[in-house]
Amino acid sequence: MSENLWNIDKIPFVGTSSLRQGLGFRYYDAERVVAGKTMREWLRFGVAYWHSFQAELVDPFGEGTAQRPFDGKYSKPLDLALAKVDYAFDFYKALGVDYFCFHDRDIAPEGDTLRETNANLDKVVDAIEAKQKETGVKLLWNTSSLFTNRRFVSGAATSPFAEIYSYAGAQLKHSLEIAKRLGAENYVFWGGREGYENLWNTDLKREQDHIAAMFQMCVDYAKEIGLDAQFMLEPKPKEPTSHQYDFDAATTIAFLQTYGLQDHFKLNLEGNHANLAGHTYQHEIRVAREAGMLGSLDANQGDKLIGWDIDEFPSDLYETTAVMWEVLAEGQIGPHGGLNFDAKPRRTSFTAEDLFRAHVVGMDSYAAGLLVAARMHEEGLIEDLVSERYSSFDSGIGATVEDGTASLASLEAHSLDIPQADLVAATKSDHLESVKATINNYIVDTLGRA
Amino acid sequence: MSENLWNIDKIPFVGTSSLRQGLGFRYYDAERVVAGKTMREWLRFGVAYWHSFQAELVDPFGEGTAQRPFDGKYSKPLDLALAKVDYAFDFYKALGVDYFCFHDRDIAPEGDTLRETNANLDKVVDAIEAKQKETGVKLLWNTSSLFTNRRFVSGAATSPFAEIYSYAGAQLKHSLEIAKRLGAENYVFWGGREGYENLWNTDLKREQDHIAAMFQMCVDYAKEIGLDAQFMLEPKPKEPTSHQYDFDAATTIAFLQTYGLQDHFKLNLEGNHANLAGHTYQHEIRVAREAGMLGSLDANQGDKLIGWDIDEFPSDLYETTAVMWEVLAEGQIGPHGGLNFDAKPRRTSFTAEDLFRAHVVGMDSYAAGLLVAARMHEEGLIEDLVSERYSSFDSGIGATVEDGTASLASLEAHSLDIPQADLVAATKSDHLESVKATINNYIVDTLGRA
Amino acid sequence: MSENLWNIDKIPFVGTSSLRQGLGFRYYDAERVVAGKTMREWLRFGVAYWHSFQAELVDPFGEGTAQRPFDGKYSKPLDLALAKVDYAFDFYKALGVDYFCFHDRDIAPEGDTLRETNANLDKVVDAIEAKQKETGVKLLWNTSSLFTNRRFVSGAATSPFAEIYSYAGAQLKHSLEIAKRLGAENYVFWGGREGYENLWNTDLKREQDHIAAMFQMCVDYAKEIGLDAQFMLEPKPKEPTSHQYDFDAATTIAFLQTYGLQDHFKLNLEGNHANLAGHTYQHEIRVAREAGMLGSLDANQGDKLIGWDIDEFPSDLYETTAVMWEVLAEGQIGPHGGLNFDAKPRRTSFTAEDLFRAHVVGMDSYAAGLLVAARMHEEGLIEDLVSERYSSFDSGIGATVEDGTASLASLEAHSLDIPQADLVAATKSDHLESVKATINNYIVDTLGRA
Amino acid sequence: MSENLWNIDKIPFVGTSSLRQGLGFRYYDAERVVAGKTMREWLRFGVAYWHSFQAELVDPFGEGTAQRPFDGKYSKPLDLALAKVDYAFDFYKALGVDYFCFHDRDIAPEGDTLRETNANLDKVVDAIEAKQKETGVKLLWNTSSLFTNRRFVSGAATSPFAEIYSYAGAQLKHSLEIAKRLGAENYVFWGGREGYENLWNTDLKREQDHIAAMFQMCVDYAKEIGLDAQFMLEPKPKEPTSHQYDFDAATTIAFLQTYGLQDHFKLNLEGNHANLAGHTYQHEIRVAREAGMLGSLDANQGDKLIGWDIDEFPSDLYETTAVMWEVLAEGQIGPHGGLNFDAKPRRTSFTAEDLFRAHVVGMDSYAAGLLVAARMHEEGLIEDLVSERYSSFDSGIGATVEDGTASLASLEAHSLDIPQADLVAATKSDHLESVKATINNYIVDTLGRA
Repeated sequence: MSENLWNIDKIPFVGTSSLRQGLGFRYYDAERVVAGKTMREWLRFGVAYWHSFQAELVDPFGEGTAQRPFDGKYSKPLDLALAKVDYAFDFYKALGVDYFCFHDRDIAPEGDTLRETNANLDKVVDAIEAKQKETGVKLLWNTSSLFTNRRFVSGAATSPFAEIYSYAGAQLKHSLEIAKRLGAENYVFWGGREGYENLWNTDLKREQDHIAAMFQMCVDYAKEIGLDAQFMLEPKPKEPTSHQYDFDAATTIAFLQTYGLQDHFKLNLEGNHANLAGHTYQHEIRVAREAGMLGSLDANQGDKLIGWDIDEFPSDLYETTAVMWEVLAEGQIGPHGGLNFDAKPRRTSFTAEDLFRAHVVGMDSYAAGLLVAARMHEEGLIEDLVSERYSSFDSGIGATVEDGTASLASLEAHSLDIPQADLVAATKSDHLESVKATINNYIVDTLGRA
Repeated sequence: MSENLWNIDKIPFVGTSSLRQGLGFRYYDAERVVAGKTMREWLRFGVAYWHSFQAELVDPFGEGTAQRPFDGKYSKPLDLALAKVDYAFDFYKALGVDYFCFHDRDIAPEGDTLRETNANLDKVVDAIEAKQKETGVKLLWNTSSLFTNRRFVSGAATSPFAEIYSYAGAQLKHSLEIAKRLGAENYVFWGGREGYENLWNTDLKREQDHIAAMFQMCVDYAKEIGLDAQFMLEPKPKEPTSHQYDFDAATTIAFLQTYGLQDHFKLNLEGNHANLAGHTYQHEIRVAREAGMLGSLDANQGDKLIGWDIDEFPSDLYETTAVMWEVLAEGQIGPHGGLNFDAKPRRTSFTAEDLFRAHVVGMDSYAAGLLVAARMHEEGLIEDLVSERYSSFDSGIGATVEDGTASLASLEAHSLDIPQADLVAATKSDHLESVKATINNYIVDTLGRA
Repeated sequence: MSENLWNIDKIPFVGTSSLRQGLGFRYYDAERVVAGKTMREWLRFGVAYWHSFQAELVDPFGEGTAQRPFDGKYSKPLDLALAKVDYAFDFYKALGVDYFCFHDRDIAPEGDTLRETNANLDKVVDAIEAKQKETGVKLLWNTSSLFTNRRFVSGAATSPFAEIYSYAGAQLKHSLEIAKRLGAENYVFWGGREGYENLWNTDLKREQDHIAAMFQMCVDYAKEIGLDAQFMLEPKPKEPTSHQYDFDAATTIAFLQTYGLQDHFKLNLEGNHANLAGHTYQHEIRVAREAGMLGSLDANQGDKLIGWDIDEFPSDLYETTAVMWEVLAEGQIGPHGGLNFDAKPRRTSFTAEDLFRAHVVGMDSYAAGLLVAARMHEEGLIEDLVSERYSSFDSGIGATVEDGTASLASLEAHSLDIPQADLVAATKSDHLESVKATINNYIVDTLGRA
Repeated sequence: MSENLWNIDKIPFVGTSSLRQGLGFRYYDAERVVAGKTMREWLRFGVAYWHSFQAELVDPFGEGTAQRPFDGKYSKPLDLALAKVDYAFDFYKALGVDYFCFHDRDIAPEGDTLRETNANLDKVVDAIEAKQKETGVKLLWNTSSLFTNRRFVSGAATSPFAEIYSYAGAQLKHSLEIAKRLGAENYVFWGGREGYENLWNTDLKREQDHIAAMFQMCVDYAKEIGLDAQFMLEPKPKEPTSHQYDFDAATTIAFLQTYGLQDHFKLNLEGNHANLAGHTYQHEIRVAREAGMLGSLDANQGDKLIGWDIDEFPSDLYETTAVMWEVLAEGQIGPHGGLNFDAKPRRTSFTAEDLFRAHVVGMDSYAAGLLVAARMHEEGLIEDLVSERYSSFDSGIGATVEDGTASLASLEAHSLDIPQADLVAATKSDHLESVKATINNYIVDTLGRA
């Protein structure tokens, strides 16, 4: 490992972690079997190119602080872009992840025209393709940056300017071709600029029609080129816009249903985005699951006292347990889903080693959540609680509701003369404080002895 | 008017208002024609029984402060309920509104069984029916309180307890019969308890299946009895639950589409609920409109720095202008919609006269919004702005998007060699600060000279 | 224990808890010594009369659901009040807590005049005094309800109405006398109505002068009667008012300093209130500690996605660990402070047994936090981290800042020619993700093996 | 005006504005006398160098969109910096403002050492000084950027790193010298990085001691060099940090009092920051005023549904009216205060002309607020309302509270036998809905006829 481009003494590996936090894993062991699959198979971790190899830990009030091994070594943007491919794949290997994700604009510099940009991009894609073959690391998903460049100031597929819309479509075409070429398992659309700054000057309907048309063109083109990556939309309520169209899971589902696109798309959900929309991460996953729309997950966390997107590496064990409980209940993250670290170290945590450490913390926190959730499922903790709680629908009047034979008249006949005391007696306490303590018990008992 | 049960010297009428706020209207004149209809026809104001005749201005930390003319005059609940019918219709008449709204449990006390409760209810409904005939005041909508009684502690149509579900259905049956009898123009379902306190013990899917079944039974029963009131769901994100299923307009639309109920329901939207979900009121109305789902409006306002439901009487002219702009664009509030004052005076504004004054402020603020919005429409202010902004889609490459002939390939062919400078030039500034100033101009210019 | 008035089979005791949550403690053992004191001494738990024996689990949209053993047994309010004293002390004993807290209006019904009210109150205080002697359970603090009765609609010590102000002072006088008589260790002022609904009609300065005068009168009267209870203010940002004067710890400190009251008062802090003000609970405690103003703690938790006061029983181990870390760093909660459960079971958790269970969860969660925090202190985890992080101030130019010899000129002389690279090198990464993982380690390792 | 560097056809001037928003003023006329002073004297508008001449309208997800006349014309940073001085003063002149504000790092590029940076800075300060003399435009305040450079990653005066602290002090020294040289009327400290990312690794007390020491050094140095600019702190609750020490007005006042700095500092308040802390702008101004701490105002507005700092140009007439009401009540903004436009056009409003337009909207909105507020004061609207509301403290028992003769005993003697009905009768309704309507009336009546 000494030849690793990152030059970090102790690249993370199993068993090096101490209580006071060595650079290693406590829970994550790729080959460990949990609930019938290896951790590797359940978790399918991905590294995000933008945060890990492109971002400099800028914030709106300060310049970048990140220290990266490639800083200052390359004067030409394309040379740097090509070099980063090596750094990236060394990073994946050192960390032991099987997947990565990128936006087209993360990996190569733009030219003056799209043709020139595509030419740059293709050179880097060549290098990535070679590295994928060499290492076996796979593309969880790629996506197109339709929000950074100033041309997208008012959106891309919802831009009021047809030239921009057309450009976005052209950009997407090449992005889908790259997905095909690199064997992407999914393809994500994040509509960061697809929303509005102000409703007064916005034709909401026309914008939605336009973006639905764009999605249909993408569906058509994928079919044309034989791309079978799962398409996904990624909900976020706001930021950078005042209001984004993919506000949350339910809103995005409503959009897809309205335009008849629901069979071609699933959702890529994120914890921080969930919180910004007023939801827990678990809620968003549950909503998507029950609609058959869970595609993949962005592994990060927010701070509910902070009103913007902080993309923190996940460490909250309550949240990773809840997320993994949903994943286990689903049997998988999604048909081809994984846990992509759409996360960045804090700006004060700026060394290259921190970048590894932060990924280790995120991976280990999800491995911990998997262990706890697997035990909860194994012991039927929540399943028992829930089936008992709803058991009055398994027979009697309840069963008539579920088998479709109930009517308002039959319900009235049943209920008209039941006294209040009997109705109150039919309600059962949920002992909710004890449920919370039980979840605490499962977390500390499982992990404390792990 | 001296015989009015409310014993207030100057019952509001047009022309009595001074700058320092007399008890009268500055803008509202029921018969004044604006944009082709009278104010009465556009606004269709309704008074909410619960806030105006039932609520005592309690809050979680304090007892009621409301002073009402019927306080302490009736020892039996049913006598009080019957007397309130007279007070209510006198109130409508004095105020000059044409509509009212109620929950079943607002108007009559509960008995021990539903049969007894229904009997109480029917006596009051008799009195209301007589008063409707006498006065011509109509029922904008009625609804069923499926949240106040302790039996609904864990929901009604999403209760885990089949007895409670059945009771809710039985209660709804009678409520629909009342709607039929009183000629309700709409029927509202507000699912205050239809959500969850905690996701861990909740079977989200089963609960949604149950409530969808209940809605279907209601649709069937309405057909059976020939009730043609427009059914409406009322979105609210949370409170009393941690998370309500009808979170916002988009979520509710997703639910209706998922269960094939979208042709039978529209939405009853509220400003305060919109804010609690992270939206402006205008946003929620726009979303509903463009989905063909706008049913009716609850006229109140929230305080965006406050995280709970305050149901303030509307006075913010920016908001009433925006709401009325949407209504004018729609041509109506909804097929049978109105502006129901789901609002209460502040707890410190507790006299009977304040109840009148508060309604006057709300009515006048909406009349003001109507005047401003009508002028904006008349002068094509927003229409011009928007059509100009999106005009690049009226011809050329933009038109191919709208007529369905575009493909990713045709867009690529169009865009591949356009240099960045031309793309940037294709984006136009929206001069947004000036747009806001223009709206200010329309408000003060229209109302200052009204 | 079978004679206990609560008639619950298994009153909580140590050792009965299973993983799936029996009705007992996993961590709390009153006599266990941790960091030099018993758990009993560190935690000093108190039960809140209002939530446990008075509240019915009402919310703004629904009636009470609580089932309590005294329900329906007493027709006269005073008889019920006297009986509740027995229920309360049986509850304390069964739970094993040493303290309780109450508002004057929790324990006895009001009469028409204050004289009559005081007479009622005195009868219940007699009973409480006897029970205290019999059981040894002590009064952590009492307080006066200056917010529930409609007379306090616009505040008490900040009411614009002198009659109400006077009444509040008179009520406080008797409350202080009760504190003296019952040996209260602290006396709390929670100004639920001391704030404003709207700033336009509020004379902020005059209101603050009035309340400061009232506090001074209380200080004077306590001196006069020899009451040595620690006075405390309890910050809360809003609800029931739009804006409360004791917004948070810092605001309350500013008020006390402005009026020269800082030597007579400390703060009673609460987790849910902290969140509503945009802070973590730990933040509020730290601010108070470093100002020498930490008095006591209300043990509850909020939900940061919910914008109102939910007073949930504490179960979040991250928060109890953080709180107890601060308490251990302080050496005590406050001079006479304790952990008062200003908390209520969820409305769906309504049985009498749930009331016990919820307290057990709260006590156990704080005992768990104590264990984790004690180990962190014992091993110097945070102390080492922090002292290392700030070590550059222990010598050199840093030391001149701390010893007061630095000036802008001396700093300029030191820094004027240091190149950027050296400055950047002087900043050290805080490896924050690893710090979070380490805290996880301490929690699960300590508790999983406890 | 054709020679203006900005090359905009119609530079704003009085009388050019139409209803649909020409590029001119409707209300602002510098020489118009309102409430005894000219608009110019009341409002003292300042332009912020950072937003207007330095910022490119970047956001966290997108590059800059701003189009400025100096774009691309200068290859050397210092040449550009010097040229911008001319652009800036032309802008002030065209707009008709009398003041400007800047951070040291806005106006000149940094060198490798502070000595080099200061040398760059001095060259630009020379140019500014000359322009000030030529045009008469004055420096409302300057400040030091202690947050942008990566060296300030963990703070400046609260950095854990003594080298950084020292550098910050050295930087401040030169900044104060510039203030002296350019005749700054105030000097502002905004502690954007003075807070914490995470409390676990933060020594809150030591950091506060350090920053207080720094402020004392600044006070001492100002005295030494005869700088009489008013020092000001600018509260903001969070962003970029998780928690900033100058959270809000009250917190900042507590800090100043704690360290005995209250006589040397006042507050520079901002509307958007107020909202992020959970307050209205009016609240923050009132709190500062009543503590004698109002220094100056940043004229911008937030969006209460958005959780980050958007620095929108002010256009909300409710807010500008409330702010100007407070200013008129104070008699001035502050001893040397003004309205500095800490505001930026929306990213979609990117032309150079928009920069003018946005300032015009902001100036006009504040001029409008001044007109409304002046009329309210002239007619004693709020004064009458408030003095009437609190009149019970002008005599009787209320007067004994204000003259200091009341005691708990005297209040008890007064109140002990007053029946509840009399107490309730002593509370008066505040008719709050009517108050809000009256404020509407004043706004539309004053401005609609202006």
